[in-house]
Amino acid sequence: MPTYQAPTGDVLFLLNDVFHWERYANLPGFADASPDVVEAILVEGAKLADEILQPVNQSGDREGCTRHEDGSVTTPKGFKEAYKAYVEGGWIGISADPEYGGQGLPYTLAAILNEFHAGANMAFTMYPGLTQTAIAAINTHASAELKRLYLPKMIEGAWSGTMNLTEPHCGTDLGLLKTKAAPNGDGSYAITGQKIFISAGEQDLTENIVHLVLARIEGAPAGTRGISLFIVPKFIPDSNGKPGKRNAVSCGALEHKMGIHGNSTCVMNHDGAQGWLVGEANRGLNAMFVMMNEARLGVANQGLSQSEASYQNAVVYARERLQGRSLSGAKQPDKPADSLMVHPDIRRMLLEIRSFNEAARALMIYSTLKADVAHRAADEKERKEADEALSLLTPVMKGVFTDRGFDNAVKAQQVFGGHGYIGEWGMEQFVRDARIAMIYEGANGIQALDLVGRKLPKDAGKAVMNFFNEVGGYIKENEADEAMKPYLGSLKTGLGHLQQGTMWFMQNAMAKPDNAGAGSYDYMHMFGLVALGYMWAKIAKAALAKKAADASQAAAMDAKLIAGKFFMERVMPETAAHLVRISTGADTMMSMPADAF
Amino acid sequence: MPTYQAPTGDVLFLLNDVFHWERYANLPGFADASPDVVEAILVEGAKLADEILQPVNQSGDREGCTRHEDGSVTTPKGFKEAYKAYVEGGWIGISADPEYGGQGLPYTLAAILNEFHAGANMAFTMYPGLTQTAIAAINTHASAELKRLYLPKMIEGAWSGTMNLTEPHCGTDLGLLKTKAAPNGDGSYAITGQKIFISAGEQDLTENIVHLVLARIEGAPAGTRGISLFIVPKFIPDSNGKPGKRNAVSCGALEHKMGIHGNSTCVMNHDGAQGWLVGEANRGLNAMFVMMNEARLGVANQGLSQSEASYQNAVVYARERLQGRSLSGAKQPDKPADSLMVHPDIRRMLLEIRSFNEAARALMIYSTLKADVAHRAADEKERKEADEALSLLTPVMKGVFTDRGFDNAVKAQQVFGGHGYIGEWGMEQFVRDARIAMIYEGANGIQALDLVGRKLPKDAGKAVMNFFNEVGGYIKENEADEAMKPYLGSLKTGLGHLQQGTMWFMQNAMAKPDNAGAGSYDYMHMFGLVALGYMWAKIAKAALAKKAADASQAAAMDAKLIAGKFFMERVMPETAAHLVRISTGADTMMSMPADAF
Repeated sequence: MPTYQAPTGDVLFLLNDVFHWERYANLPGFADASPDVVEAILVEGAKLADEILQPVNQSGDREGCTRHEDGSVTTPKGFKEAYKAYVEGGWIGISADPEYGGQGLPYTLAAILNEFHAGANMAFTMYPGLTQTAIAAINTHASAELKRLYLPKMIEGAWSGTMNLTEPHCGTDLGLLKTKAAPNGDGSYAITGQKIFISAGEQDLTENIVHLVLARIEGAPAGTRGISLFIVPKFIPDSNGKPGKRNAVSCGALEHKMGIHGNSTCVMNHDGAQGWLVGEANRGLNAMFVMMNEARLGVANQGLSQSEASYQNAVVYARERLQGRSLSGAKQPDKPADSLMVHPDIRRMLLEIRSFNEAARALMIYSTLKADVAHRAADEKERKEADEALSLLTPVMKGVFTDRGFDNAVKAQQVFGGHGYIGEWGMEQFVRDARIAMIYEGANGIQALDLVGRKLPKDAGKAVMNFFNEVGGYIKENEADEAMKPYLGSLKTGLGHLQQGTMWFMQNAMAKPDNAGAGSYDYMHMFGLVALGYMWAKIAKAALAKKAADASQAAAMDAKLIAGKFFMERVMPETAAHLVRISTGADTMMSMPADAF
Repeated sequence: MPTYQAPTGDVLFLLNDVFHWERYANLPGFADASPDVVEAILVEGAKLADEILQPVNQSGDREGCTRHEDGSVTTPKGFKEAYKAYVEGGWIGISADPEYGGQGLPYTLAAILNEFHAGANMAFTMYPGLTQTAIAAINTHASAELKRLYLPKMIEGAWSGTMNLTEPHCGTDLGLLKTKAAPNGDGSYAITGQKIFISAGEQDLTENIVHLVLARIEGAPAGTRGISLFIVPKFIPDSNGKPGKRNAVSCGALEHKMGIHGNSTCVMNHDGAQGWLVGEANRGLNAMFVMMNEARLGVANQGLSQSEASYQNAVVYARERLQGRSLSGAKQPDKPADSLMVHPDIRRMLLEIRSFNEAARALMIYSTLKADVAHRAADEKERKEADEALSLLTPVMKGVFTDRGFDNAVKAQQVFGGHGYIGEWGMEQFVRDARIAMIYEGANGIQALDLVGRKLPKDAGKAVMNFFNEVGGYIKENEADEAMKPYLGSLKTGLGHLQQGTMWFMQNAMAKPDNAGAGSYDYMHMFGLVALGYMWAKIAKAALAKKAADASQAAAMDAKLIAGKFFMERVMPETAAHLVRISTGADTMMSMPADAF
């Protein structure tokens, strides 16, 4: 049976020692979240993860969801009880607007808890996770009336939320969507069309399901400029929020997927379902992007979470499994063999995973703190800059965390040898579950294009220049410190490569946009490496300080310093290959005729 | 429904234009395999793959194998008929010893056909594939009597073969194995013990199953020097080869695996089963290595095969799926969107796969031709050199083809977006099936150790020096040719990196073997890149010549030249990062205390 323990200790170190949580106390919601309150919340959230959600992860994968003839869907055994515990803990509304019953705590905390919960049970955590992102979209764009009607129920977890975007012929290219919205004359619309791949589209956990649906109002322009966003509830609430008439939206089938079997992935049929416009007509993509951006951070977190969960299990196995002898002579001569831990190649795999996990967790906190600043700071300029920094990093984290998260789950599985391929050990589930994160909420190739085509050139590259200046400044500020040298050298080289890659695009992709497309994936990963390396530099600095201040922390801090050094020596240097690839441009790949592939 | 077409055309180009098949005509068996005979055989073998094996690949995955209460196992629907066709085509014994009913054709052909058949249906092809490797082990090490009794039945496919190595507490470290062999007094032994992960351990395809079992004869030394190899038939044959008494070996359970569901992975219980010694007592690992080395090439082929199959499907999807517009303006303005083929990042993924597939196929042929020379050449020195070259390349191919094969299946799945995650499209099956190849027949980390610890230092590095000289000589010989320049520059750099990495081991790993372990995986992949790059240089030269000689071939050859250029520009440069990692050594990773992970 696989195991999981939410990484509370690492998070507390990051919040307090690396990011100086107390400095944010002036932001609304942070005052209520003093370090001891934060610790108490994280400990409770970890308990839910370890004791309630994780125990139904493997069984949920095996059982999966079941659709019945009437279109209803049963989630795996134990999910109802887990959901009840989740709701009772108030976890859904932890950072939601207090006006509608939310706790108004920092979004950073909600994101951290999402890592914990997804690490314990990714398929389950998608149910409340999608509700959280739907809450964000409604809160930002819907009318006061819709907010009043829907948000309290969603925040308390009585109703859930979903995103209905994809159709059989369009996923990435939403401009092609065909679902129609016809005005009913009473301010509502009749929505007709088929949506596919709808996560949590139908389930037995909540008394109502609030679908956020993209559709085209009759007569609206073709393409993305004619798309509107609608609320389509499963049961239509009366004005007091009591679910009434069953709406004409239903689950036509469940998809048979590679993983996340515990989450119901539905074909949703809208047969003239009654819907209400969210935000302005024809500006639906704009409204949906609020949801998507938050969902992208959630998916990045999923990548990290599966990397962390699979790492923890691989460590247990590597410690316990006796196989072979150390290359430098037996280390456990009284045992029939040494533990796997003596083998450098096992350590290589474990440290590749570990050195990602801690830096990725830091980057998630670094970025979600920007989200909190963007939403809560008093100063508009500060808000805007934080929002732009977050926008820049969102595609990087979504693409890099999910690619590396999946690779890491595969590596952790490899540590188990043959046992890794067998269901009962749970490692192959991590791999299957992690795989979807590279695909949904915008396939990773789309994240790369978003980064290079949209985020990079925005405001003449202001956000990216700010980021380069911040990292460059940090290096300069610390490079005189001898103890920091191992953490700055290859970061500096990596930053240089990233800047060269950026320059190459400026010089070569304006006239020939295929050059941007051809290098976008490498650029995204190069960006990720520099951002993760920057986090390692910050972690190392904090670890050195903590170690100096408190000898009892020396062993824990040394482990971080070793993992960081490993990252700098062995992972960071990959930026060179990315730069080489970017600089080759698109000519070779575009010269192949389509029918010659 | 996924599709597959065996790459016959590419193979014929490689055999005739790149490797000059006719030059091998002096070897026994090659005279019977003139180019037109070879073509006829390949076309027939491809037909079996495309029309018989592929149609039951997806259904076999869904249905899986079933174990019944009596320990018997049913394979998926259609496997019996497929096996009958396989046997009737004489495919099992294609390169086996004519003395026992084999066709004695080149092993190279058998390996090519294995790629075709595994590409069509990996789980199915393991049944006859394991028989082929068992035939090789018996033929090399067993007594004349055992050969007479077993080989004809196995070669005709009436009986199958398996490998019984792994036990619950030992996989890699076979020295720990506990299965016992007690002399029965009549020359046979009573075998007792449990074996796990036994592919094709029980099935309903053949009238008998011949298990090759590693066990320790009572009183034999501990460790690997006390292990012997036994034949343990499911039914004990009389001296005429008629299966008689049921032996005390049975399938206790089927493993629930991530993939290859169509192949029965069994727990095999030996309860005093009657077995016969193969080769010398206590030299069982030696005998088993014949089987394992051939099996490792087979597994390398599996990696390639899943890469090829998933590539073909991704190309079809990328051509047909209309989504988004070209970055350089609409290419199919009459359609609602352009095909995926217009997007550079889609082409990047496809060309990463394609540029591996063709070079890997070449390297497999290059290596299996060495196997044929090693077994059939008249000159002993020639045989020995070929055998050493093959020994060097075997772990490289096993490790690199299966790692890249899996990565490529993941990439091809990514081309499908959300559809790649759904079972019906078949892409997630390629990923799940390909995953096992990185693990079995020696996990890839073990291949890397075999390469660095055993193959590299053998005979003072003679084999590796020969390989470097061959590649270096080829570069020198061709670098004056302007048309060859794009195919030699980064190969030369890569070869230099590989030589530096080799030197680094010589200087740093003798006294400190952990330095070899820490860099072994990177070394294996660096070696693979250089070997694949060398193949691309050979392919490019042949393609340039063919194009010049025959204008009708220009388009097909240009496609190869583009794929090769892509490899040299974008894949080959990865050697730099591998060298950096190797040169960092083991210090950082070994400094982490085991309990600090």
